[in-house]
Amino acid sequence: MNLMVFEAQFRVYYEDTDSGGVVYYANYLKFIERCRTEWLRSLGYDQSALSAQHQLVFMVRSVEGDFLRPAILDDLLTVDLRVEKLGRSQLVFLQNVMRKKGDNAGGDSEILFSARVRIACVSTVTMKPVSIPVWMKEKLHSIL
Amino acid sequence: MNLMVFEAQFRVYYEDTDSGGVVYYANYLKFIERCRTEWLRSLGYDQSALSAQHQLVFMVRSVEGDFLRPAILDDLLTVDLRVEKLGRSQLVFLQNVMRKKGDNAGGDSEILFSARVRIACVSTVTMKPVSIPVWMKEKLHSIL
Amino acid sequence: MNLMVFEAQFRVYYEDTDSGGVVYYANYLKFIERCRTEWLRSLGYDQSALSAQHQLVFMVRSVEGDFLRPAILDDLLTVDLRVEKLGRSQLVFLQNVMRKKGDNAGGDSEILFSARVRIACVSTVTMKPVSIPVWMKEKLHSIL
Amino acid sequence: MNLMVFEAQFRVYYEDTDSGGVVYYANYLKFIERCRTEWLRSLGYDQSALSAQHQLVFMVRSVEGDFLRPAILDDLLTVDLRVEKLGRSQLVFLQNVMRKKGDNAGGDSEILFSARVRIACVSTVTMKPVSIPVWMKEKLHSIL
Repeated sequence: MNLMVFEAQFRVYYEDTDSGGVVYYANYLKFIERCRTEWLRSLGYDQSALSAQHQLVFMVRSVEGDFLRPAILDDLLTVDLRVEKLGRSQLVFLQNVMRKKGDNAGGDSEILFSARVRIACVSTVTMKPVSIPVWMKEKLHSIL
Repeated sequence: MNLMVFEAQFRVYYEDTDSGGVVYYANYLKFIERCRTEWLRSLGYDQSALSAQHQLVFMVRSVEGDFLRPAILDDLLTVDLRVEKLGRSQLVFLQNVMRKKGDNAGGDSEILFSARVRIACVSTVTMKPVSIPVWMKEKLHSIL
Repeated sequence: MNLMVFEAQFRVYYEDTDSGGVVYYANYLKFIERCRTEWLRSLGYDQSALSAQHQLVFMVRSVEGDFLRPAILDDLLTVDLRVEKLGRSQLVFLQNVMRKKGDNAGGDSEILFSARVRIACVSTVTMKPVSIPVWMKEKLHSIL
Repeated sequence: MNLMVFEAQFRVYYEDTDSGGVVYYANYLKFIERCRTEWLRSLGYDQSALSAQHQLVFMVRSVEGDFLRPAILDDLLTVDLRVEKLGRSQLVFLQNVMRKKGDNAGGDSEILFSARVRIACVSTVTMKPVSIPVWMKEKLHSIL
């Protein structure tokens, strides 16, 4: 599978930090979810429309995450996404949260958080896994 | 109106704090919402049941809140609630978030956050205000 | 006082919503805080630097907020900010959270949430209010 | 190692849910962190005191989590904790988030979320791993 990379940037605000002076550990899962959402949007899919028109929702089944270095207030984070596996009803993503030196694309970057995320395509009617629709799968295959 | 007071206690965890070393300001609204929910539960009303069986949801219309002293990690907070006004489709609550000295009921307490919260009873079907049901109003009148 | 307006845009993600199908009420306070932070940043002030170099932090003293219409998943919100008052150690902001039709600058917009927010400049050493520094006040006067 | 089990209970409030109608996936990490904090407190350790008096903080290094069934609004969750490994500067926990039928201790329970969490003892001065203090290790050995 072609490891196409998608990237999105998010700022760290007070709401994301805790009194340890760093980003609260659960909040890295928010940043990587925003990136998956923006990736879907870049393909033309809003999750609110997928749910309303197609009764489909993507639910996280498992996360393996490594907290490598802390992000802090005012950091501009770059979050990336690679599709590791595209199954019948599941997708596996590899995602990193990074801080780039100098806040620009050319500079070095440190990986702060790294995760493998397994997602299932679920029917909002039965709440059971269903096949990823053919039209979405064709689009995914065309870019991977 | 009889200012009956309802109280509930909540602990401050890392998730509630920010890198300023105190509870993040928006999170006081979470604590007072938990208290309103526990008050409704103490009257026999689960909001999930109110929504599923009666197509009713209580939505916040306005908040006036004063941040008096900061709460910090590990504080045991006491949150209280008084019904200031019971209208046709609205309720107005006065709520405080307090830290009691010695974590016991008899001790002195400091008010950390104080708010007036106006709530509307809304139909989940039309998303418009509706009268608070008679059976709930009778119960509320019996305790106020 | 010249009601100069500053604007910033933020997307609504799953993390912002609740099972009522709309943005959770406390999270509007996150959106308006992000906007105040971006306004400070646009003036050259990072809050992490203000805290580390000048022992200053801006703490919210009071919020009066009206929840007018709900924001929902995938909304692109425009948050604005006006300085209503610039005091010795306090700032008062008027802020709106809006949804613009067609996600563009020219279209109509609906106000979803509207707030007056009073902020105090506080020393991180004494945790007491201090005068807003002269160099910051001059900058603020030059833009207001 | 003796798989001593510690348990704590937490209610699901609106703040924990998302517009998919279930608990937002990152928030299970909040529930298991609250349980670890209550376990430390049951041993006599407040994290604010550990940080202030001993310059120690417990930081999460990795999480492997499986999302098995969704929790929903008003659920009373039981969160448990087992110490799988007690190393020089690290602790590994096994944790479950469960919904017990009938909200009582004797009933059946469903596991909703299951995780292995690796924690490091870190100096707040150097932000580097340090040995878990002897006095804490002796206490941990006495209960495990």
